[in-house]
Amino acid sequence: MLPGNFRYIFFDADDTLWQNEEFFREAERRFARLLSGFADEDRIVEVVTRKQEENIPVFGYGSKTFLLSMLDAAAEICGDAFDAALYLDAKRIVTELACHEFELMDGVEEVLSVLSARYSLAVATKGDLVEQLGKFRESGLDKYFHHIEVLPTKSEDDYLMMARKLDIRPDEILMVGNAVRSDIAPVIAIGGTAIHIPYKVTWHHEMMEMPVSDRLFEIKSIRNLPELLL
Amino acid sequence: MLPGNFRYIFFDADDTLWQNEEFFREAERRFARLLSGFADEDRIVEVVTRKQEENIPVFGYGSKTFLLSMLDAAAEICGDAFDAALYLDAKRIVTELACHEFELMDGVEEVLSVLSARYSLAVATKGDLVEQLGKFRESGLDKYFHHIEVLPTKSEDDYLMMARKLDIRPDEILMVGNAVRSDIAPVIAIGGTAIHIPYKVTWHHEMMEMPVSDRLFEIKSIRNLPELLL
Repeated sequence: MLPGNFRYIFFDADDTLWQNEEFFREAERRFARLLSGFADEDRIVEVVTRKQEENIPVFGYGSKTFLLSMLDAAAEICGDAFDAALYLDAKRIVTELACHEFELMDGVEEVLSVLSARYSLAVATKGDLVEQLGKFRESGLDKYFHHIEVLPTKSEDDYLMMARKLDIRPDEILMVGNAVRSDIAPVIAIGGTAIHIPYKVTWHHEMMEMPVSDRLFEIKSIRNLPELLL
Repeated sequence: MLPGNFRYIFFDADDTLWQNEEFFREAERRFARLLSGFADEDRIVEVVTRKQEENIPVFGYGSKTFLLSMLDAAAEICGDAFDAALYLDAKRIVTELACHEFELMDGVEEVLSVLSARYSLAVATKGDLVEQLGKFRESGLDKYFHHIEVLPTKSEDDYLMMARKLDIRPDEILMVGNAVRSDIAPVIAIGGTAIHIPYKVTWHHEMMEMPVSDRLFEIKSIRNLPELLL
């Protein structure tokens, strides 16, 4: 069993509770095929990625910002061939992404059901408010959680704010997530405990070296969480 | 003094605490000038408004959705003349909108300072999470509020959820805002009290008939709020 005296388990949502990154990468591939007459896929992905890094600080996370980055990339790559049809095709790809079929990660429902009997659970997710709350409603997981927080970023300050809001100390947080930069590093830095569940795809934006800490654990699947905690 | 025993005063943000709609309308006029070779301003505004009604249910409120509606309108109005330059111009208008100079409504700071000594204050705003929290940080008003809620919509259910979260009854809510549809009607419907402060511009999307209730009051300016309450 894990050391520490947790009063709350925080869960990341995208790629921890449900599939997400895969759908974004699939949308990016569809967009690259749309532009295949102008550049190869690697170059297109590289430009979209660069535009994302420029747009996220101004416009935040989520599929609308992703669409703007695709359009910025198209303006750079296609020049005069950028037209209304291309815009509408890109918008269609992102609309389908925003409305995609919803897929929980394997074992999530059973694990939350077991843990919610013993712990207070919260969701700490970043992203677009409408999108994240929509996914949450669709997930049917709301009955397991005491608190849901959609954050504009997931920095140390954001976790400290959540702790204040829930009236707990930072060292009473146990955070479960897949992204080192958003889920693991800031929680370790403020004295909390973190459990890393690597996801098969890591978003470029989230890449970061794993911190070294005796308050950091790694499991392969959310299915292994109860045996670690109970 | 107002009847009722309020435990919380909720404030709308856009066009109640700070200017907003005016900046959107100015951006729309700039966009119409951009397209002035293809249609007159009234027609352009009409198409953007229609596209907004289509996009908001899928993509939510805020400036990114507004940009998508402008681009949809341009695709419909300009046909083959829709090009990369037009996209980049529209994006520039909306980027400037998202980063526009911040302007508090007259008297806000004094009124909040007086009221926060006697009441618990909360913000109930809809819109894009990143944008609204950004404006809130910039406003410097956070010291007056116990709670800030950025909602995807402002329906009766959303206000009931806020009441549960704050552990108050719906009839203990006093809501202050400019939009009948979002700020007044749902709060009256769940048994709360509302104070309407009309704004000089009403967004088409927010138009709705004013409900009839003895729990509804109207004042000209937020400056008149203390005399009504204290």
